[in-house]
Amino acid sequence: MRLFSITPPRRATTPEDLTRIADVTLERVRDLELDALVLYDIEDESDRNPALRPFPFVASLDPARFHADYLRRWDRPVIIYRSVGKYDPTELKGWLAGQDPALVATVLVGASSRDSAVRTRLTEAQSLWRDTGSVVPLGAVAIPERHAHHNDEHDRMLAKQALGTSFFVTQVVYDLTWAKDLVSDYAYACRGQGREPAHVVFTLSVCGSTRTLEFLQWLGVHVPRWLQNQLEHAEDPLSDSYEQCTGMARELAQFCRRLDVPFGFNIESVSNRRVEIEATVRLAQHVRDLLAG
Amino acid sequence: MRLFSITPPRRATTPEDLTRIADVTLERVRDLELDALVLYDIEDESDRNPALRPFPFVASLDPARFHADYLRRWDRPVIIYRSVGKYDPTELKGWLAGQDPALVATVLVGASSRDSAVRTRLTEAQSLWRDTGSVVPLGAVAIPERHAHHNDEHDRMLAKQALGTSFFVTQVVYDLTWAKDLVSDYAYACRGQGREPAHVVFTLSVCGSTRTLEFLQWLGVHVPRWLQNQLEHAEDPLSDSYEQCTGMARELAQFCRRLDVPFGFNIESVSNRRVEIEATVRLAQHVRDLLAG
Repeated sequence: MRLFSITPPRRATTPEDLTRIADVTLERVRDLELDALVLYDIEDESDRNPALRPFPFVASLDPARFHADYLRRWDRPVIIYRSVGKYDPTELKGWLAGQDPALVATVLVGASSRDSAVRTRLTEAQSLWRDTGSVVPLGAVAIPERHAHHNDEHDRMLAKQALGTSFFVTQVVYDLTWAKDLVSDYAYACRGQGREPAHVVFTLSVCGSTRTLEFLQWLGVHVPRWLQNQLEHAEDPLSDSYEQCTGMARELAQFCRRLDVPFGFNIESVSNRRVEIEATVRLAQHVRDLLAG
Repeated sequence: MRLFSITPPRRATTPEDLTRIADVTLERVRDLELDALVLYDIEDESDRNPALRPFPFVASLDPARFHADYLRRWDRPVIIYRSVGKYDPTELKGWLAGQDPALVATVLVGASSRDSAVRTRLTEAQSLWRDTGSVVPLGAVAIPERHAHHNDEHDRMLAKQALGTSFFVTQVVYDLTWAKDLVSDYAYACRGQGREPAHVVFTLSVCGSTRTLEFLQWLGVHVPRWLQNQLEHAEDPLSDSYEQCTGMARELAQFCRRLDVPFGFNIESVSNRRVEIEATVRLAQHVRDLLAG
């Protein structure tokens, strides 16, 4: 499963610029043989972390709108994230009912902290999805960091699967061991319960500067101490992190094959810098070839 | 630096059997091109861990005696561990003063818990070593697990180095990330203080059964969750752990070369089973070739 993620442009963008950005994006991903293009639904998340956000938050366009209005030329599937707390239940249900399940899947994401003011809770959103016939393929996030701290993320995954989730997308992975720990516990739990594991899609993202590194950590990504040292002291962190990502992709692919867990990769850039976006596309090409080989 | 560790035979062994065991051991390690043979000084350590010791403790011969009386045919260096709490200060000082520093190095090890009744404390043993002219090369243990929990093992290493330690030997490594974290923090701390890093020798040990796995964990070795699952479910854990050890050796060698930290490997078997000892010798051959290449 090959995914590539984008964040819709900021809300204030003019229609002309939205068209141009959509064209550039589709041109970029044209040769990546993607199974789907992922559209994130960005939240501020400042309530999740008291530390200063290293990149300022900019409200971005609703991914469903960006898809409907500007990505019509993309004739392959999309996976549209829904930060469900941002939407009214009626709005969310109407959207779910209106999608072509051959072309649109969704990942429902709960609020980033318990204190967030939300219009729809995650459990409610899952009910709305069932009310619309459970036809739009449903994904969920899986977080190796949460597993490292609480040892129950595999149970959460199985519970989500019982409610209809058919694939999981991880948070950005920089700790290979933690990613392996989660998929291993998940695989053995599935075996123990006689259930087929769902696709686990690992998100990979290059890191071209200490600013990007700080942002990844702010987002909750665990970067092992040695790698943090290496990226902080690197002459070319982009090249170092690229090498790290391709190494993790190779190892995770081997590992999942050995465990018989269907898997994939989701490539994203958490920064807007051109060199990082270009490296992201190269990483997606690398993963395309890895999964073809 | 290529080391191979043995535990001296149990105390009750007859002189004939000691001679035979010494011969078998020297035959085993003959082609390993070792820089030194390591002789451990086993303590019960039951005071360190309230859980039942998976392999029963058997008091073994003083490694210095086994060396002096039975390993005379070994004309290359040895590194003799001293669990200093077991010895009287006068006895320890006499031994230190009597060694040929071209052939004998020592690793002074403190008590396994604060509650242990000790005849000599580690700091006192270090003073005795200085009193004898600091001529016997002095090593110390380095524990990645302690670094993972307290983040200060690199500081301890620098402090030990300031007192004369010229090489470090780790506890058995099964968590590659934690080993890399420690050597990385140590390397950058050395750079920051303008000091040359000392040799870091990683101890590797195969694991042929769930019993051995439990013993490693009882000894305080951190085995990542995924690897624990894999070894517990493996048809052939010995072969799996062997593969894991050679993979870690390759990665740690690359990593230390990149960081300009002098390094080595110490190969040991924590179990007495013949298949595990044979695999240990194969692992040492593999490491010999890796470091030659």
